[in-house]
Amino acid sequence: MIKVGLLGLGTVGTGVVRIVEGHQEDLLRQTGSPISIERILVQDRAKMRTVSVDPTKLTEHAYDIIDDPGINVVIEVMGGIEPAKTYILAALEKGKHIVTANKDLMAMHGAEILAKAAEKGCDVFYEASVAGGIPIIRTLVEGFSSDRITKIMGIVNGTTNYILTKMSQEGAAYGEVLKEAQALGYAEADPTSDVEGLDAARKMTILATLGFHAQVSLQDVEVKGISQITKEDILYGSRLGYTVKLLGIAERQDDHISVSVQPTMVKHSHPLASVNGVFNAVYVYGEAVGETMFYGPGAGELPTATSVVADLVAVVRNLKLGVNGRETFVPYKEKKLKSDEQIASKNFILLHVEDKAGVLAQITQIFAQYEVSLESVLQHPNPNNPKAEIIIITHDANRASMKKVLKQFESMDVIHAIKSVYRVEG
Amino acid sequence: MIKVGLLGLGTVGTGVVRIVEGHQEDLLRQTGSPISIERILVQDRAKMRTVSVDPTKLTEHAYDIIDDPGINVVIEVMGGIEPAKTYILAALEKGKHIVTANKDLMAMHGAEILAKAAEKGCDVFYEASVAGGIPIIRTLVEGFSSDRITKIMGIVNGTTNYILTKMSQEGAAYGEVLKEAQALGYAEADPTSDVEGLDAARKMTILATLGFHAQVSLQDVEVKGISQITKEDILYGSRLGYTVKLLGIAERQDDHISVSVQPTMVKHSHPLASVNGVFNAVYVYGEAVGETMFYGPGAGELPTATSVVADLVAVVRNLKLGVNGRETFVPYKEKKLKSDEQIASKNFILLHVEDKAGVLAQITQIFAQYEVSLESVLQHPNPNNPKAEIIIITHDANRASMKKVLKQFESMDVIHAIKSVYRVEG
Repeated sequence: MIKVGLLGLGTVGTGVVRIVEGHQEDLLRQTGSPISIERILVQDRAKMRTVSVDPTKLTEHAYDIIDDPGINVVIEVMGGIEPAKTYILAALEKGKHIVTANKDLMAMHGAEILAKAAEKGCDVFYEASVAGGIPIIRTLVEGFSSDRITKIMGIVNGTTNYILTKMSQEGAAYGEVLKEAQALGYAEADPTSDVEGLDAARKMTILATLGFHAQVSLQDVEVKGISQITKEDILYGSRLGYTVKLLGIAERQDDHISVSVQPTMVKHSHPLASVNGVFNAVYVYGEAVGETMFYGPGAGELPTATSVVADLVAVVRNLKLGVNGRETFVPYKEKKLKSDEQIASKNFILLHVEDKAGVLAQITQIFAQYEVSLESVLQHPNPNNPKAEIIIITHDANRASMKKVLKQFESMDVIHAIKSVYRVEG
Repeated sequence: MIKVGLLGLGTVGTGVVRIVEGHQEDLLRQTGSPISIERILVQDRAKMRTVSVDPTKLTEHAYDIIDDPGINVVIEVMGGIEPAKTYILAALEKGKHIVTANKDLMAMHGAEILAKAAEKGCDVFYEASVAGGIPIIRTLVEGFSSDRITKIMGIVNGTTNYILTKMSQEGAAYGEVLKEAQALGYAEADPTSDVEGLDAARKMTILATLGFHAQVSLQDVEVKGISQITKEDILYGSRLGYTVKLLGIAERQDDHISVSVQPTMVKHSHPLASVNGVFNAVYVYGEAVGETMFYGPGAGELPTATSVVADLVAVVRNLKLGVNGRETFVPYKEKKLKSDEQIASKNFILLHVEDKAGVLAQITQIFAQYEVSLESVLQHPNPNNPKAEIIIITHDANRASMKKVLKQFESMDVIHAIKSVYRVEG
C-alpha cells in the first residue's frame, strides 16, 4: 500500500482525490500497488467540500503529514511560495517523494528543491506546473532526449488566451472581455499575474530550463502583458493574416538563449494560431525532429489532476523498482543570455503619421539606414482618424537595430505616434 | 560504453547514425554513458552512403550482430515482417534490448515480441513505429497513465494527408495529386498500403492496444482508403464547414471498443482539421483530461530517428539503473468489440435524386423510420448534372440503423445514386 499525503484540497486537490479514488483498479494495474490518500491538509476542517472525504483524514497541521513515517509520497497542490516551499523541503528531509503542481515555486526555487531531492534520493515531479493536462515536461525530458531543442513557443496561460480569442472573434475591447472573463470565473478578481504575463513567464522559466539544459531564472524573462492590445491591432493583424496571441518564446542559438513573454502576431497558418479559448499549446522545434506541437487543457480540476496523478504513478513505479531520485534533472550547460544584437524576429509596426507627400520615403529610409529590410508596407487613410496610418512588417531584424529605428521615429515630427510594435511569428 | 548494433541503414538508419554521432556529448550527459554504433547490417557493403561510416562496421550477416556478446542494444530499422521478426526474437533470446521503428511488426506480432522481452528481462521500445517524431506512445503510457482514454483519432499517414491537403487546397482530383506525390517521393510507386489505409490501420492497432489496455489486432480494424474520394466530396464538405481527412478512430465505451480507418469529414474548428501536408497528429480524449492533440512530422530521416534515439536513451538509462524489462506493457483488459448498434457517429451523405416533388419527403421519412435524426439537409440543383443533389448530415446515429437506411435507399427508384457516405467528426 502506497500512502499519500495531500497538501491542499482546493480545485486541483479535489481532482486528485476524485481520480485516485475513482481509478483505484486502473492505478493498481498500472503500478502493482494499491494507493491511498491517507491525510489531507486543509485550512478549515469544517468547510463543505464538493468531494466526499473521510473527515478523520483531514488535518489543519502540515506536520501531521510531514512527520508521519507511514506516508511515502507528498502531493503539494496549495500553490504559492510559502508555506509550500518549507513543507516540501521538510518532507524531502524526511525522505518523502514529492509531486507538485506549483509553477511559482518550481520557477523560483526549483533548483534548490531538486538539489535537496537529489541529496535525499527522492523523486520530485512537477508535470502539472506547466500547461495543466498536457504532458509537456515528459515530452521535453524523455520524448526529445535525443534532440537539440532550439525553440519553444507556448500559449501557456488560458485566461489571456480566452480574452484574446474573444477580442478576435467578437471585435470586442480588452476591458469588456476581461470583465466577462471575471464574471465567468476564467479570470481572477485581481488579474495582474495573468494579464501582465507573469504566470506565463514562470512557466516559460521551467520549460526553457528543461529544454535548453541551462538554469533559467524568472529575472531572465522579458515580460509584456496583453492590457495594451487594442481592437485596431487585432483588426489590422487579422487583415494581414495574423492572430494576436500571448506567446512565451524561448530560443537558443549556439548556446545563447533568450526567453520572453509578449503579445505576438502569429500567422494564421501556424499551428499556434488556431489554439483558442482557455486551451494551452506548446510548440517545440528541435534540430532533428523539426516542428511539433502539444495541445490540451491548461488548467481545470481534472486535467491538472491527471498530470498530478500521472506523476504519482511514476513515483510508485520507481518505488517498486527502487530507483527513486535517480533521474533528477540537472542543467549542465552554462546560461548565456542573448544580447540585443543576437535576438532577431519579424516585427509588426503601426504608425500614425502626417498625411503628406514624402513621409513614407522618410520612414523607409530610416529602416534602410539601420539595415532593417521590409516584408510589406501598407498605408491607408483611416476614416475615423485625420492622420494616415502605416503598417509595416519587417523581415527578420535584430533587436538592437529595431530599437534604433524606433528611437529615430520618436524624434520625427511627421510621425505622430508609434501606436503598436509586435513581434511576428510564422 | 554502450554498444549498439543497427539492423538497416536506409533512411531511418542513416538518421540514427547522424544523431548518435552528432550528439555524442549530449547523449553522454543524458545517459552517463558513451554510446557507440558498433556494427551495422546492410544488404550491400559496397553501396554508396549519404552518411560516412567506418566500412569495417558494416556487415551483410545479421548474426554478426545478434551473436556478438559485446552488443547491448539492437536497433531494428529494416522494416517488414521477415527477417526483422526472426532477428529481433533471436536478439532477445541473447538478452539484448530492442529499439524498433517497425509498425508492421509491432502491429502484427507485438504481443509475441513483448512476451519474449518480458521472459528475458529485456526492454523493447517502439516509439518511432507510430507517427514518426511525435512521442505519442510515451504520452499514452506515461503522460496519461492516470486517466481513462475513451477516444484516439489520428492522422497517422503523411502520404494520404499530403494528397488530401492538395486536393482541398487546389481543387485537384485524386489521380493527379497521387502522381505528383509519387514524383516528389511522398508516395511510393505502389501506393496501396498508404492510400488504402493499411499503414494507418497498423498504427491504430498499436495506439488502441496501448490506450485501451486490450490486445487489438489488425483484423479488428475496419479499413477504408482515400481512392474513392471525389473533388465534389471535398468541395461540398468545405462549403458545409468540413475538411476531408483520413482518420484512424479508436473508441471505447464501457469496455467495448471499435477501431477503424476511414475518410472523415472533420469540422473546420476541430484541431485535426488544420493538420496539413505530410504532418501527422494524434488527438486523444481522456475522461479526466478532456481534449488533447499531439502534432509533428510523421516520417522522415531525422524526425523518425529522433524517436529511435530517444528510445535508445531510455534503454541506456534503464541499464544504468538495472531495471530493463521491468515496465513491459501488458494489456490486462479483455478485448470486446462494439457491435453495429454500439457504434455511433454523425454522417455526411450525398445523394443524386430525381428532381421532382415529394422526393425529399420520401427520403426524410426513411431516416425517421429508423430513428436517425438529421442535423441539416441541403438540396440544390447542380448545373452540370440533370439530377438534383441532396446532402444530408445526420445527428449521431448508430451504424446498424444507418445500414438499414442506406439499404432502403438502394431500392428506391427516385434515388439514382448514393454518391458518398462519410463519417463526420467535430
